[in-house]
Amino acid sequence: MQKEFVKEVADINTDFPQWYTDVVKKAELADYGPARGTIIFRPYGYAIWENMQKDMDRRIKETGHENAYFPMLIPLSLLVKESEHVEGFAPEVATITKVGNEQLADPIVIRPTSETVICSMYSQWVQSYRDLPILINQWANVVRWEKTTRPFLRTREFLWQEGHTVHATEEEAQEETLKMLDVYIDFCKEFLAMPVISGQKSKREKFAGAVATYGIESLTLDGKSLQAGTTHFLGQNFSKAYDIKFLNKSGVLEYAWQTSWGVSTRLLGALIMAHGDPRGLVLPPKVAPIQVIVIPIAQHKEGVSETAQKLVAQLNKAGIRAKADFSDQSTGWKFNQWEMKGVPLRIEVGPRDIENNVMTLARRDTLEKDVVALYDIAPIKKLLKNIQSNMYTKSKKFMDSHIVKVSNMEELKVALDSGNMAKAIWCENEECEIKIKEELQATTRVIVKRNVKGKCIYCNEKHDDCVEVIIARAY
Amino acid sequence: MQKEFVKEVADINTDFPQWYTDVVKKAELADYGPARGTIIFRPYGYAIWENMQKDMDRRIKETGHENAYFPMLIPLSLLVKESEHVEGFAPEVATITKVGNEQLADPIVIRPTSETVICSMYSQWVQSYRDLPILINQWANVVRWEKTTRPFLRTREFLWQEGHTVHATEEEAQEETLKMLDVYIDFCKEFLAMPVISGQKSKREKFAGAVATYGIESLTLDGKSLQAGTTHFLGQNFSKAYDIKFLNKSGVLEYAWQTSWGVSTRLLGALIMAHGDPRGLVLPPKVAPIQVIVIPIAQHKEGVSETAQKLVAQLNKAGIRAKADFSDQSTGWKFNQWEMKGVPLRIEVGPRDIENNVMTLARRDTLEKDVVALYDIAPIKKLLKNIQSNMYTKSKKFMDSHIVKVSNMEELKVALDSGNMAKAIWCENEECEIKIKEELQATTRVIVKRNVKGKCIYCNEKHDDCVEVIIARAY
Repeated sequence: MQKEFVKEVADINTDFPQWYTDVVKKAELADYGPARGTIIFRPYGYAIWENMQKDMDRRIKETGHENAYFPMLIPLSLLVKESEHVEGFAPEVATITKVGNEQLADPIVIRPTSETVICSMYSQWVQSYRDLPILINQWANVVRWEKTTRPFLRTREFLWQEGHTVHATEEEAQEETLKMLDVYIDFCKEFLAMPVISGQKSKREKFAGAVATYGIESLTLDGKSLQAGTTHFLGQNFSKAYDIKFLNKSGVLEYAWQTSWGVSTRLLGALIMAHGDPRGLVLPPKVAPIQVIVIPIAQHKEGVSETAQKLVAQLNKAGIRAKADFSDQSTGWKFNQWEMKGVPLRIEVGPRDIENNVMTLARRDTLEKDVVALYDIAPIKKLLKNIQSNMYTKSKKFMDSHIVKVSNMEELKVALDSGNMAKAIWCENEECEIKIKEELQATTRVIVKRNVKGKCIYCNEKHDDCVEVIIARAY
Repeated sequence: MQKEFVKEVADINTDFPQWYTDVVKKAELADYGPARGTIIFRPYGYAIWENMQKDMDRRIKETGHENAYFPMLIPLSLLVKESEHVEGFAPEVATITKVGNEQLADPIVIRPTSETVICSMYSQWVQSYRDLPILINQWANVVRWEKTTRPFLRTREFLWQEGHTVHATEEEAQEETLKMLDVYIDFCKEFLAMPVISGQKSKREKFAGAVATYGIESLTLDGKSLQAGTTHFLGQNFSKAYDIKFLNKSGVLEYAWQTSWGVSTRLLGALIMAHGDPRGLVLPPKVAPIQVIVIPIAQHKEGVSETAQKLVAQLNKAGIRAKADFSDQSTGWKFNQWEMKGVPLRIEVGPRDIENNVMTLARRDTLEKDVVALYDIAPIKKLLKNIQSNMYTKSKKFMDSHIVKVSNMEELKVALDSGNMAKAIWCENEECEIKIKEELQATTRVIVKRNVKGKCIYCNEKHDDCVEVIIARAY
């Protein structure tokens, strides 16, 4: 029975992309929407996102930011003010030209990101150094008309948070950019049990309109890189385009310094791709909508349902998100289903267990089983903690062993072909970057070290100020 | 100083609409967006919405619903399936016809509400009675191209929750419709300290596509009615249009029964209009982002800032949302500003208070002051509770005294002109309803009693099955 069920998802080792799509569907995380490139976040998938939101929102507020909400509808004329920005986004921007049967005189675009509308307001709100810093975040949907889409990773509408801050000095804005990068790194580590590698993006890969972009990249089980969040130092690019000026303490008008930063529902994809196994999803306890699933064995027998119910009540009381499955499906089906959904811990209780005053714990991450005293919550709490940290340790080990130092194109090709990220020396010349992409379908992900003396992996030229960069194939 | 500040908002008694707009701006709740008819929810306004969301979300989940998220982008072809629904919404629907410079072959509309996209998914998800009920809610933005707009009350984009449920029987769906109406009534009462009057909407006023719509109406301080939430019994209208069928227990295919229900950021408008006074906003403690504002008097004097800080820390520790205002504005300015923002309780501490080991409490609702022992949290907790219940009692009294029974058109006119809602007998004939609207610019709001023997207020005809209905001018 179990085997049959497992067959319903593709082999994780030989067809990882299909495994991913299958798991998204079978675990009831998402479904395709009627408009191309859109998805429905089904309750189980959305509950994961809600947990992420809650923890991230706390972190954002604890670092001094407030939430606000800016309109999704932006006059086309406003979008075009920062030239690099509009160039980067225009091809994917959806435009409303019609309402009912009437043509609009002035077309309205749907935000692909909110710098333009937010900066237009900041230019009204900022007058003096007293108004600074502005530290605002918003949770919102955005629309980018992507050609090829994949659930969570790339969809025409997605959900995210976007922070937009304004500062009086360059240093303060730079500090903010790196501070939020740290918030993202820590969130991935502590909450998602997911290591990331971080650093500055190359000029070619940076956000359209930014001076510098920093990114966090997670590693998928098939050895690809996945951009999981970015923070941007905008310099004065937008403040000049949108006229955000303030009177400094000496009474002189200055352009303000800005940042923006965001993580999105892409994190759901990163999470699935970092922790899955042949049976489906594996969720870290902190983000799991259901942390413990209780399966009553022979639930029609006397006392079994009551025991399961009592156990769930006690777990809930202890602050553990627990649920019992009393459906009329077979036990085997239930095991498979909740494994597919990645529930960190399964508890089995049957008539014999009750007789012996025990219950069986089956952890999802290692598939190990253990028998403990019935109703004893302490070992469950301990196990959940253990699963969370074990998942991080395992992922970290996986990442460390899949970043391969390479010093020439042949080594790079081998590293990528065998499912690794590569670390290489690069002269930062865009032409080399483009050639690598053309030849190996791999891109520079993040710069991890600067001022490196060495030979560029592509052009072979020696420089004193090369960088060490992560190169990888990416989702 | 205080007087001058108050002058910055229009007189609440003589120009209520302007008072409202002024308060929205001065209390920094919202600002106008660059696209016509859109607003920015500024941090203080958005924080009120976040508090509402949190409490409403809890209530929605406690009644067995799960959150999900459906796409905002809907193929035009999908929108047109339920004819009454599309007729009602089509004129305000925004349509995307262009992406970048390319025309779309199939236009995509932005959801004005999500029945169409959600029903198209439900038709795939529902097969058997085992799949029912489906109890899903989503928090989302929607777009309706309104001609005349007003912050929070009517904007082209607004935020809301929309519940969409599917049931096996008519009774169950009807029960759900009324259950959620009760959730809304209780939320307004307990959380917003705002009484509402509820009942079924007339045929003319119901949701396009529903069999029956129920509404809650709040009363504004200028005697107008404000629709604050609705629940819809959809019958089988949408299940027939979108083919949502299930095999019942006897193995027979049946169309499912549905409901939908929502409250929106309109509630912010209702809240402001129900509780304000000449000095600005008055917020009930439960929904207030800042429940206590501590104003240090002569803050440069020794010990004052430290005392204020310590007090805030102790309040926060006791679970009270408190903040101190250390800005370099004058005390008078601070008093005015936080009164404008409707903070329920102000605490003043100055050098003399510290000497005497006391602090002054000034409540926002009654403007009464009291002196209590410094750092004593108990009277503050008590006072906040008291403010919450006092605000409801006051509003309820106001509502009760502003619903006037009328029995002819002259009485109706007098009642409306002097700032009341009216309760009248009506034959349920749409022509009478239209005439009343034409002659008095008032509409039927909710039906509060059925099977009433009496004479219709408009046509004067006697019937055994008239209804008692609330008639009012409305925002």
